[in-house]
Amino acid sequence: MEKKIHTIASLNTHSFSAHLDEVILRNGETGKRIRIDHPEATAVIPFISDDEIIMVRQFRYALGRETLEIPAGKVDQGEMPEECARRELLEETGYKAGLIRFVYTYAPAIGYSNELIHIYSGSNLKRMNVEIDEREISSLETISLKRVRELIKKGYILDGKTLIGLFIMESAGP
Amino acid sequence: MEKKIHTIASLNTHSFSAHLDEVILRNGETGKRIRIDHPEATAVIPFISDDEIIMVRQFRYALGRETLEIPAGKVDQGEMPEECARRELLEETGYKAGLIRFVYTYAPAIGYSNELIHIYSGSNLKRMNVEIDEREISSLETISLKRVRELIKKGYILDGKTLIGLFIMESAGP
Repeated sequence: MEKKIHTIASLNTHSFSAHLDEVILRNGETGKRIRIDHPEATAVIPFISDDEIIMVRQFRYALGRETLEIPAGKVDQGEMPEECARRELLEETGYKAGLIRFVYTYAPAIGYSNELIHIYSGSNLKRMNVEIDEREISSLETISLKRVRELIKKGYILDGKTLIGLFIMESAGP
Repeated sequence: MEKKIHTIASLNTHSFSAHLDEVILRNGETGKRIRIDHPEATAVIPFISDDEIIMVRQFRYALGRETLEIPAGKVDQGEMPEECARRELLEETGYKAGLIRFVYTYAPAIGYSNELIHIYSGSNLKRMNVEIDEREISSLETISLKRVRELIKKGYILDGKTLIGLFIMESAGP
């Protein structure tokens, strides 16, 4: 157990914040902890067929490079995680999911963030007439599970939620 | 591509920092991004036998709860990732690994952090006469892979690096 003494300073964006806390450590000493206060998030593995999924290419500012990921985003205030998963899928790929199933909840960065990501699978996809969010998405790719497995073997998939989602689906099936 | 205009403010600890940047977005608008500047990190799956691993219970301040994880930590300046994996294993469990093998590198929180985690497996473990770092570790558990699989099925394992390390080992073997 570590206990907060006080918050020294904070950084805020419209959707989440970072805080520098002074804390009492387990051994009674004091120390500093950076703590990201983040809303819950969802990710969706969109099955466009039994063995193909849709992935998004995105520029990631903190990492300074483009990555290949499954669609994902932060849960809005008052929104249920499953609604969020449906909304993010639509905004990022233009597809509506006929079926959404819960896969797993995990914590991506437990050393400094309270973020939880709820992963879903989406199937029975239907193309809708919506514009894809160009502030976030560079391009869409339809890719076979076999090809994704090869990309993972080569170490090409960097994104944690994408790896976890795919591994859990592999062991459970769509 | 998103381009930094300037850093508005920063929070610092001895080992990493958080920055609030004003950036130009893909569509030409300006926005704010929180960016964690984090050293690389390593994690080790310590095989105490062919089908048992050692896990650590740790209180995670940002998450506000205890988690069951594989040993891990930040790479020190001038240290190679493999050395770091050996050091963290020794500090957190008291075991020295006769054999360390690279498993995978991934990015845990690409939305706001440049952290990369290098996962290794450790085997031929030997108990050393060292004190375990009590500021971080609550307890050690030796646990069968079968039991870990059950815990994952129940959704009990929250930690991303632990999930990814175990899934990749499952598909490749120790």
